[in-house]
Amino acid sequence: MTQDVKTSSTPHFSAERLALFSSEILQAKGMSPKDASTVADALVWANLRGMDTHGVSRIPMYMRIIDKAEMNPKASLELRHDTLAVKVIEANRSAGPLAMGWASDMAMEMAKKTGIGMVMVRNTTHTAALGIYSEKIARAGMSCIAMAASRPNMAYFGAKAAGISTAPFSLAVPGPDNQPIILDMASSVVSMGKLLQYKAKKQPLEPGWALDDAGNETTDSQVASIPLPLGGPKGSGLSLMFELMTSLPLMNPLIGNFFSGEFEAQRHCQNAMIIAMDIYQFCSKEQFQAELHMCIQALKALPVDDKVGEILMPGERGYRESDKRALNGIVIPPSMLKTLNELAQKLNVKPLS
Amino acid sequence: MTQDVKTSSTPHFSAERLALFSSEILQAKGMSPKDASTVADALVWANLRGMDTHGVSRIPMYMRIIDKAEMNPKASLELRHDTLAVKVIEANRSAGPLAMGWASDMAMEMAKKTGIGMVMVRNTTHTAALGIYSEKIARAGMSCIAMAASRPNMAYFGAKAAGISTAPFSLAVPGPDNQPIILDMASSVVSMGKLLQYKAKKQPLEPGWALDDAGNETTDSQVASIPLPLGGPKGSGLSLMFELMTSLPLMNPLIGNFFSGEFEAQRHCQNAMIIAMDIYQFCSKEQFQAELHMCIQALKALPVDDKVGEILMPGERGYRESDKRALNGIVIPPSMLKTLNELAQKLNVKPLS
Repeated sequence: MTQDVKTSSTPHFSAERLALFSSEILQAKGMSPKDASTVADALVWANLRGMDTHGVSRIPMYMRIIDKAEMNPKASLELRHDTLAVKVIEANRSAGPLAMGWASDMAMEMAKKTGIGMVMVRNTTHTAALGIYSEKIARAGMSCIAMAASRPNMAYFGAKAAGISTAPFSLAVPGPDNQPIILDMASSVVSMGKLLQYKAKKQPLEPGWALDDAGNETTDSQVASIPLPLGGPKGSGLSLMFELMTSLPLMNPLIGNFFSGEFEAQRHCQNAMIIAMDIYQFCSKEQFQAELHMCIQALKALPVDDKVGEILMPGERGYRESDKRALNGIVIPPSMLKTLNELAQKLNVKPLS
Repeated sequence: MTQDVKTSSTPHFSAERLALFSSEILQAKGMSPKDASTVADALVWANLRGMDTHGVSRIPMYMRIIDKAEMNPKASLELRHDTLAVKVIEANRSAGPLAMGWASDMAMEMAKKTGIGMVMVRNTTHTAALGIYSEKIARAGMSCIAMAASRPNMAYFGAKAAGISTAPFSLAVPGPDNQPIILDMASSVVSMGKLLQYKAKKQPLEPGWALDDAGNETTDSQVASIPLPLGGPKGSGLSLMFELMTSLPLMNPLIGNFFSGEFEAQRHCQNAMIIAMDIYQFCSKEQFQAELHMCIQALKALPVDDKVGEILMPGERGYRESDKRALNGIVIPPSMLKTLNELAQKLNVKPLS
C-alpha cells in the first residue's frame, strides 16, 4: 500500500505514500487522524492531476500558518445558518478541505430535496484545489459552481499594486465514464506558482503576466511579484465579485480588512461558496450524456491549431496525468523533498525515501 | 416625454424616444404592446449604459430572425419544471427579455423562501445584456449569477475554427446608492461587435483578438472573423461550461446540434440560467454595505496605472454613461439611423428624426 514507486533516479512516490506522509505530518501538529487524512487526500488529489502547486508542496505553508495560529488543526466546524437550500459553515480557521468537503456533501443533500443547494464557508484556511469538490459533486450526478476568496496578491485592473487575489472558480458537470468535465481556473493570467517556477528556472516571463514590486509590468522573472488579472477588467472583476459574493455576506471581508492595517486582517484566511444543482430532476441522465458526447465529439473534430497540438475538454489533461501518476508515481523535486524531510525529522515523522 | 434631445449635429435621441420607436417596430411585427415595451426597454438599457452593441442596433437582427421564424413575436412562455427552488421556462422562441425577466422575478421569489432560487430558460432568442437581469436582482437586495449559451461563433482553445460562443456571464451584488456592482462579461477577449467596429474604421486589431476564416491568427480587421477566447483555455472553458450547464440539462444542445448539420440546429437560439441568492437572510444589509464601502475605498486608494487612468468598480462606467446619456441623449450613428428608418418606413412606424 505505502511502497514507494521508483521508475527513475528522480524521487517518485506513490499517491498512498505521499498521503500517509502528509497525514502523519498533520497529525504531528495536532490534527485528528480522520481530519489529517482528509487534508492529505486533498493535497495528493492535486499532485495526481499535475497541479503540483496545490499538492504536498503546500505542507511547509500549512506548517507555517499552524505555527502562527492562522490555521487551527483542532478547530471544529459549526453550522451557523441552516435553511432548506442555504447553509453557512463557520470553519473556525480549520484546514480548508474539512469545511469544503462537508459543504459539498450538504449542498448535494439540499439539492436532492430542493433542486439546488448552496453552502457558504466562512473563515476557512487554504481551500486546496476547488476541483476536488466540484468533481465530487459532478461524480454524484450534479452540476456545481464553486468560488473562493483570499487575501490580496494580484493587481486590480488599473492599479499598480495587489488589491485582489488570484481567486479560483470552478464549474463542473457529470461526464462520461464517471469523469466529470471540470473547469478549475484562477482569475489571473498565470498562477503565483508559475511565476515562481519561472523565477527558479531563470526564464523570462511573457508580457502581460506580472508586475514588479513598484507596480511596473515586467518580463523579468527575478523581480516579478504581482500576477496580472486574466483579460484585465474581466479577471479582476471576477476576483472582486468572488470576494463580494462570499466574504461580504459572510461578514468576513478580506480585501477591506487587509488594507485597514489591523493585525488580524493580515492573517491567512479564505471564504468560499459551493452550489450543487440536481440537474437530473429535470433531464434524463441518458439524454444529458448523449448530448455531452455529441458536443465533445464535435469540438474534437475541429481543425487543430498545431501550436496547441490537441483539442482537450476542461479537466481532461488532469485525468490523463492522474492515470499516469497513479501508475508511475508522483515526482517530488529534490529541493522540495529535502524541505519536506527536514520537517518530518523535526516532527518525528518517517521521512519520504 | 418622447421629444428628441439634440445637442449637436450627430443624431441624438432620448431613451424614451428610442424605446417608443423600438416598441412600435416590434408591435408592427406582431408583438403585443406589453411584450414589445419590455424588449424595447432591454435594448435601450444597453444603449444608456454605453453597450451599443446590445442596444437598438440589434433591431435589424431581430427583424431578420422574426422573418425567418427563428423568433416568434407571439410566443407564450411555459413553466416546464416547477419545484421549490428550481424552475424551467420553455421560452418557445420568444424574445429573450420576456423569459429572462420572468426568470429573474421567479428566482427572487424562490430565494425569498429557500434562500436561493434558480430558473433555467430554454429555447429563448437573444437574451439581450445579462446585466439587465443581474442588476434587477441586485437592486432587490440579492446576489445573482447568470449565464447564457449560444451557437458557435468563437474559437475553442486549440481549434482553428468556431466551436463555442462568446457566451456571457454576469455576477452582481447589491451596491451603494442602489447601484449594484455588476460584472457583465463575454468569454471572448473582445466582442464580435468590437471586431466589426475596427473593421468599419479600418483599424488594425491587437494580436490575440481574432482568427480569419482559415483559422489563422490575424490583426487585419478586414479579414478577422472568429473572436479568440479570453485567456485561451480559461475563456474557452467558461463558454463551454455555460453550454454544458444550461443547454444540455435543458435538452436543447446548441454546440452538438450546430455541427450535426440539421437545418433546425443552424437557427438562432439561446439557453440561459439565472440564480438569485437572498444574502440578507444571513447578514445584515447595513454590515454588507459598510464592508462593501470599505472594499471599494481600499481599491480606489491603490496607486493608479497611468495607462488606465482610473480605478473603477464593475459596472461603474455603465452608471456614469447612463447618467450622461439620460441627460444628453443617445447617439445613433447616421448609417444605423438610416437602416432603422428604412425599416420603420416599411412597417409604417414613425421614423426617428
